[in-house]
Amino acid sequence: MTKSDAAQRPSRPAFLGDLFETLTDRGRALLRWRDPAGRITAPPGLPEMGDLLLSRRGEASGVALARALVTAFEDAESDTRREFLMTLADRFGPDPQAVAKALAALQTEPESVEAVEALHSASEPRRQELFRRLNLAPGGTAALVRMREELLRHLRGNPSLRRVDGDFAHLFASWFNRGFLVLRHIDWNTPAAILEKIIRYEAVHAIQNWDDLRNRLQPSDRRCYGFFHPQLVDEPLIFVEVALTKGIPDTVAPLLEVDRKPIDADRAGTAVFYSISNTQRGLAGVSFGNFLIKQVVEELKAELPNIQTFVTLSPVPGFAAWLARAREGGGLLDDALRADLKPLDQPGWHVDPDAAQALREPLLAAAAIYFLRGRDGKGRAVDPVARFHLGNGACLERLNFLGDVSANGLKQSHGLMVNYLYDPDRIETNHEAFAERTDIAASDAVRRHLPAAQAITKETP
Amino acid sequence: MTKSDAAQRPSRPAFLGDLFETLTDRGRALLRWRDPAGRITAPPGLPEMGDLLLSRRGEASGVALARALVTAFEDAESDTRREFLMTLADRFGPDPQAVAKALAALQTEPESVEAVEALHSASEPRRQELFRRLNLAPGGTAALVRMREELLRHLRGNPSLRRVDGDFAHLFASWFNRGFLVLRHIDWNTPAAILEKIIRYEAVHAIQNWDDLRNRLQPSDRRCYGFFHPQLVDEPLIFVEVALTKGIPDTVAPLLEVDRKPIDADRAGTAVFYSISNTQRGLAGVSFGNFLIKQVVEELKAELPNIQTFVTLSPVPGFAAWLARAREGGGLLDDALRADLKPLDQPGWHVDPDAAQALREPLLAAAAIYFLRGRDGKGRAVDPVARFHLGNGACLERLNFLGDVSANGLKQSHGLMVNYLYDPDRIETNHEAFAERTDIAASDAVRRHLPAAQAITKETP
Amino acid sequence: MTKSDAAQRPSRPAFLGDLFETLTDRGRALLRWRDPAGRITAPPGLPEMGDLLLSRRGEASGVALARALVTAFEDAESDTRREFLMTLADRFGPDPQAVAKALAALQTEPESVEAVEALHSASEPRRQELFRRLNLAPGGTAALVRMREELLRHLRGNPSLRRVDGDFAHLFASWFNRGFLVLRHIDWNTPAAILEKIIRYEAVHAIQNWDDLRNRLQPSDRRCYGFFHPQLVDEPLIFVEVALTKGIPDTVAPLLEVDRKPIDADRAGTAVFYSISNTQRGLAGVSFGNFLIKQVVEELKAELPNIQTFVTLSPVPGFAAWLARAREGGGLLDDALRADLKPLDQPGWHVDPDAAQALREPLLAAAAIYFLRGRDGKGRAVDPVARFHLGNGACLERLNFLGDVSANGLKQSHGLMVNYLYDPDRIETNHEAFAERTDIAASDAVRRHLPAAQAITKETP
Amino acid sequence: MTKSDAAQRPSRPAFLGDLFETLTDRGRALLRWRDPAGRITAPPGLPEMGDLLLSRRGEASGVALARALVTAFEDAESDTRREFLMTLADRFGPDPQAVAKALAALQTEPESVEAVEALHSASEPRRQELFRRLNLAPGGTAALVRMREELLRHLRGNPSLRRVDGDFAHLFASWFNRGFLVLRHIDWNTPAAILEKIIRYEAVHAIQNWDDLRNRLQPSDRRCYGFFHPQLVDEPLIFVEVALTKGIPDTVAPLLEVDRKPIDADRAGTAVFYSISNTQRGLAGVSFGNFLIKQVVEELKAELPNIQTFVTLSPVPGFAAWLARAREGGGLLDDALRADLKPLDQPGWHVDPDAAQALREPLLAAAAIYFLRGRDGKGRAVDPVARFHLGNGACLERLNFLGDVSANGLKQSHGLMVNYLYDPDRIETNHEAFAERTDIAASDAVRRHLPAAQAITKETP
Repeated sequence: MTKSDAAQRPSRPAFLGDLFETLTDRGRALLRWRDPAGRITAPPGLPEMGDLLLSRRGEASGVALARALVTAFEDAESDTRREFLMTLADRFGPDPQAVAKALAALQTEPESVEAVEALHSASEPRRQELFRRLNLAPGGTAALVRMREELLRHLRGNPSLRRVDGDFAHLFASWFNRGFLVLRHIDWNTPAAILEKIIRYEAVHAIQNWDDLRNRLQPSDRRCYGFFHPQLVDEPLIFVEVALTKGIPDTVAPLLEVDRKPIDADRAGTAVFYSISNTQRGLAGVSFGNFLIKQVVEELKAELPNIQTFVTLSPVPGFAAWLARAREGGGLLDDALRADLKPLDQPGWHVDPDAAQALREPLLAAAAIYFLRGRDGKGRAVDPVARFHLGNGACLERLNFLGDVSANGLKQSHGLMVNYLYDPDRIETNHEAFAERTDIAASDAVRRHLPAAQAITKETP
Repeated sequence: MTKSDAAQRPSRPAFLGDLFETLTDRGRALLRWRDPAGRITAPPGLPEMGDLLLSRRGEASGVALARALVTAFEDAESDTRREFLMTLADRFGPDPQAVAKALAALQTEPESVEAVEALHSASEPRRQELFRRLNLAPGGTAALVRMREELLRHLRGNPSLRRVDGDFAHLFASWFNRGFLVLRHIDWNTPAAILEKIIRYEAVHAIQNWDDLRNRLQPSDRRCYGFFHPQLVDEPLIFVEVALTKGIPDTVAPLLEVDRKPIDADRAGTAVFYSISNTQRGLAGVSFGNFLIKQVVEELKAELPNIQTFVTLSPVPGFAAWLARAREGGGLLDDALRADLKPLDQPGWHVDPDAAQALREPLLAAAAIYFLRGRDGKGRAVDPVARFHLGNGACLERLNFLGDVSANGLKQSHGLMVNYLYDPDRIETNHEAFAERTDIAASDAVRRHLPAAQAITKETP
Repeated sequence: MTKSDAAQRPSRPAFLGDLFETLTDRGRALLRWRDPAGRITAPPGLPEMGDLLLSRRGEASGVALARALVTAFEDAESDTRREFLMTLADRFGPDPQAVAKALAALQTEPESVEAVEALHSASEPRRQELFRRLNLAPGGTAALVRMREELLRHLRGNPSLRRVDGDFAHLFASWFNRGFLVLRHIDWNTPAAILEKIIRYEAVHAIQNWDDLRNRLQPSDRRCYGFFHPQLVDEPLIFVEVALTKGIPDTVAPLLEVDRKPIDADRAGTAVFYSISNTQRGLAGVSFGNFLIKQVVEELKAELPNIQTFVTLSPVPGFAAWLARAREGGGLLDDALRADLKPLDQPGWHVDPDAAQALREPLLAAAAIYFLRGRDGKGRAVDPVARFHLGNGACLERLNFLGDVSANGLKQSHGLMVNYLYDPDRIETNHEAFAERTDIAASDAVRRHLPAAQAITKETP
Repeated sequence: MTKSDAAQRPSRPAFLGDLFETLTDRGRALLRWRDPAGRITAPPGLPEMGDLLLSRRGEASGVALARALVTAFEDAESDTRREFLMTLADRFGPDPQAVAKALAALQTEPESVEAVEALHSASEPRRQELFRRLNLAPGGTAALVRMREELLRHLRGNPSLRRVDGDFAHLFASWFNRGFLVLRHIDWNTPAAILEKIIRYEAVHAIQNWDDLRNRLQPSDRRCYGFFHPQLVDEPLIFVEVALTKGIPDTVAPLLEVDRKPIDADRAGTAVFYSISNTQRGLAGVSFGNFLIKQVVEELKAELPNIQTFVTLSPVPGFAAWLARAREGGGLLDDALRADLKPLDQPGWHVDPDAAQALREPLLAAAAIYFLRGRDGKGRAVDPVARFHLGNGACLERLNFLGDVSANGLKQSHGLMVNYLYDPDRIETNHEAFAERTDIAASDAVRRHLPAAQAITKETP
């Protein structure tokens, strides 16, 4: 290209031609920014970087530009970051001209599948490609997950962000497809950098310290498994803690005791999933738990043929609140049962043997109604944990009176815990019946707690 | 669920409820199929399995169903497979009702970005979700790549498959995003299972046997790098072979000689990319080469600061065919040059020193015209290898007369080879100028071979 | 073998023939013991197992027998174990007959080197071969190290054990030859099973908890390296903690502060070895520290060319005790100095600025005398840490007044800390001069603290 | 140290003080040599380096000095190397003074175990410590193994080298103790650098090329295992090739066929060790095979419970030579048998069905005599392969007529192959009976081939 050539191209924006140059430092491409006069200058704003990354220039310098944008976003002030997220909603939606053209084409040939599919392509929000290009940055996947985590905090009050969130969710569902996840056994030989995250993320039964952690990983009758994504090597996406036992436990405290004597893994008959925790808020809505539990069932079956029963020991977080409302009337509890539940109002009833004895049957009856008859405003099972496990195809196996007498256990569920059973032979049928008709799979033992009148009523009126 | 319950649900298709059950064998979920009467039966057809996988049932049994479909597809006869691919085009396109509804909503609010984005979602071909669910199968990613490879063979003559291909391409571009690829050094300590694929896939200078392979991997002045995807652990997606040399080589034979004496890597000044091969036809259109070369440049710079020059030694596959046409007229070659090129028609000219000497300048002049002035029917640079490297931002550095005197080299390019130079400082500018205006980045040495008249003409009129 | 054959062999001890049989359980060979009548019985005593292991039977069943002996030893009561160790001294010494024969042969040919070497072989204590065979057991190496650790506790009061100890030491020096050790970087990605041992074994500056540990491993300006043996994968044999700093530090507290701001590793100029800990008492006398420090110097030089200075920050554990004696007289301290040191007796002098100021020079003078002139009863340098570093070829670089004002630091050394400098160019000369003539390598800065009279005196009279 | 100090030490040999200095290059310590005047000079001779390495100087600079000696030895001319080995015998034997002193002490106290053990220590040849220090060099272990390999070539004709060899053997037996070896599965995912050694070292059935190799590693019914030492990562010390079959094979050709159809590993009932090869001549006399076979039996039992039978398919390398002598007379073969064996002299008898049929019984009878009655000059079983397997405790299970009709098979054993059976329940008894009385463990099927007269005779007269 001769000098005169350049002179003849007035239309070419100096902007694109000279804005930055790539430097290489110890094997990493970095950028240095220049102004139109060629002077070294501060980098442009985040939206401008986004435009650049989507431009032709971005094809050649994708890695360096993506790194620059990711770094600039994370270094920016909170306000600047929120503003950029809003810009994603406004300025990085579908290309209006392309959409108009595709719509016009469709009107010409309303029956054409080609035209519909062309419209689909034309209407893809530009931010989807932007996210794919940001992923070129070293650590890009993790950065995008954090970016969505931040976006979720701004969702309330910024409804337009919901569209951006939808694109994140769509992309993450594809990238974090179970086919790309790796199941790893987490034990005492796992790097500390991962273990400290287990401590941090455990959401069900908090891990007090490293000794408590070791107590859940090292004994012969304890297991922990997590799903990892190749791009987030240090970050378990979800993990489950398992106790190998001789029967189905009804309380959690003995499982967590530090001084208990472990049993041999090949003498256990039951695997108890006593805690399952998601770790990445930025991956909300991408479902891993279902796959994790089933994969762990298969792993344990292959390793320990002696294990025949797979259950959870689960909290019932919605019970106490639901019961409070039900005791006020509404028809699910009859008068006799409401009367029998009176002692619940007596503080410390659970340590008073007589009161506890008197409450056992009424409370279990109410719990059976809660699980089998109760529905929330959307017609769903009330309990969120129940929705998860029943939705996975598990069956409500047992109600455990005073299974968790911690302050929190008493408060949220009057001490109730339950076991969900994962029976591989019935998972599909259960799942489908629950998904289509909210049929609750429950053992006879659970159903027997229903008061006679309720038992006659069909559960799905 | 009691018996009478079941009797009350005539509308429920026995099909879905009883079609299959999941078995677990050594930690792998398998399916057993049943007919409506509950008898064990043969599996349904591929499209029916596809429907099942997209149904609610598919949510609960995704992994087992995906595995069943993948296996059934691969075990099927060729005709059945092609038919299934056609079905993907016809039956697994966008949901017409959803599209109609979204279009109607858009007509109500023509200015609504929400409505456009809702239309985008509604018009996604169902096979995209099908592919994502197939990916749940163990080895699913590889199976999908093979499925597309097969589809590509049927493309000609089945235009509707082009839409299916577009969805594959879209999904693979996302899944094989450079951010998910891992660069690995391939050497003599690499597992044989990978090395045999290097032998099989090498597309530029065939590898004769394992000794030839070792000769390209083990010496101190040889390197090989490839991109791998975590789901395809044994399969390099693309790889490049590198020779470390003391200057820019002009012929390939000495690089491949088995008996040459290697030099110390820290005495080399130049890295020569003498072969770059894509391996997966099923990933056609997903571009890796650009990223691979740049990443290898950064790796080598970090490891060996003594290496300052990064070039290719490349074939010129389109030259002989272009020259044959150009010698017939059309204006790019003037009469004098056409006359000077006559000796080309003499067989064995390249081993006749006088003939070779006489042809040197005319042939290099013709080559300069080919690269700098020649355009194909779409206005692009004629040479496909040139398009790749110039598109990456490289610069045409040198023309090598008789660089490859193998039968193939003489036939396709009259023995010509060239070097493309990767200069990190100029990659963006080159790339952009090439992409926007087909400006050919070339050294002065190359330009000087242009006949005087051509040199005056601007190359981009 | 027919029945009659067996009947004809009355001389064959049933003992050896039928004592045990090998069982295989999940890939591990186990033993079942039988009495002469063939009935299953308890295993024999430890010494009998030792004899068996050295017998021909032991050749065929080495692994299982070694495992049985190791397990039996570790499961035995403390008394039984000590007794077995005593038996090793008495019953597993050299074979007297073989020695007598070899001595006789030597007397016949007193000049024969062959005869001397044959005597050497004949006089090898049988326990050496026993130890080599015990090493066949899975985990045998670790078990032998633990066995010696126990032996060391019984040494005082059982002088014959000293010979057994000598054989352990001889064998371990060969097995733990530096050529078999692996240097590993210990960081926050190291398995927790190893890290908890770092916490347990740190002997210089105790690690409070996992946060304290992370603070020594994770920041960019901290390193930790250890030697590992392939047979003891989870056990660092020795490890050193390193701080990368901008100058030579004179106090340890800032290095250990949790809230300090790390610097970039490639901006540091100095590497400070602030803690080095041996971990295996059972390997006492096998020297690793010398090799570890030198290897780490080479590692750091290769990784960070910016680091030019390698020093320790070390305690002076013998100083206060030595000074107390020296102040009572004996000639090393003159009267003036003794008078100047008086304020040392005032409690809390180190927090009284005037007292501290007054003591600075006298105390440093006394310290210079301690290092440069002081000798213990065997004519060695008094300070054990000094003997280690000077013996490695380091040089005493600097005396740090009030470098460690912890209770322990004040008690053992009146707060003094010192830096030893590892200068690769002078290590051999220093080492040799120290080893041969107890020449103390010390900087001019240290020597200048010597009182005038002492400085004139040659240090090695 | 002041200048005047240095001037006062005339007695210090410049030799030790200035002979070399350590340089560090990219993290490796190197030496630069100086003459007494301080000028850079060529390195000293190998024996002088050996002395230095054993000196105090060697303690400080062990790694660098060991590396220098190893490199100098390997770079030296063949004559220089042999000379150095001779010097090891002469100059690096036991220290005569120390021996004399220890002998004198023993004469004072002839009953003292301490004195005997002190004599043992005093009489250790100095080269043992030299070898241990040479092991400090990077790659030192491998270098020592190569050094002994060279020594073995010079043994004949240099009887004094036998003592050096004994020290190598003693040290290697300790260093390559089975407790330090690692069993590794060798398959098609093994690095090529190791696989090419399998090709090179296979000693029983030569591996033609990489396809042949893959055919022995990759199919579902093939296994290969080797012992590795942590210091020789790329070098299998010994390896065994295993075929999983449905019965005990009697010929080798079908096992090696490239086009055969593999069976599922979990359908096999028998594991056949059809080739076992030692690789390191320098480790002659250190026995691995016994441990390897037993370990592989345990591995396979744990992985594939369906495998119940463990046999070899082995050559009979000594049979033809023994038979030629036996047919000349000597009493083991009676006249009738000698007559029946006549057709053996007819070339091509094995492809003549009648001749083959006629020879079958006589040849198997002769083979039974060979194994059960034949003894070599030292009273041992004649066949070296038999000695190995019977010595391991295996039993001679079956004689296979025309099991190997290759030219070599016919030549060395008239086509005979045999199976040795490894029955874990009988290994110890077999081993011991063989080791103590050369009792040959053989099946009834083998014994039945003995001519009647021989069968009556006891096998161990």
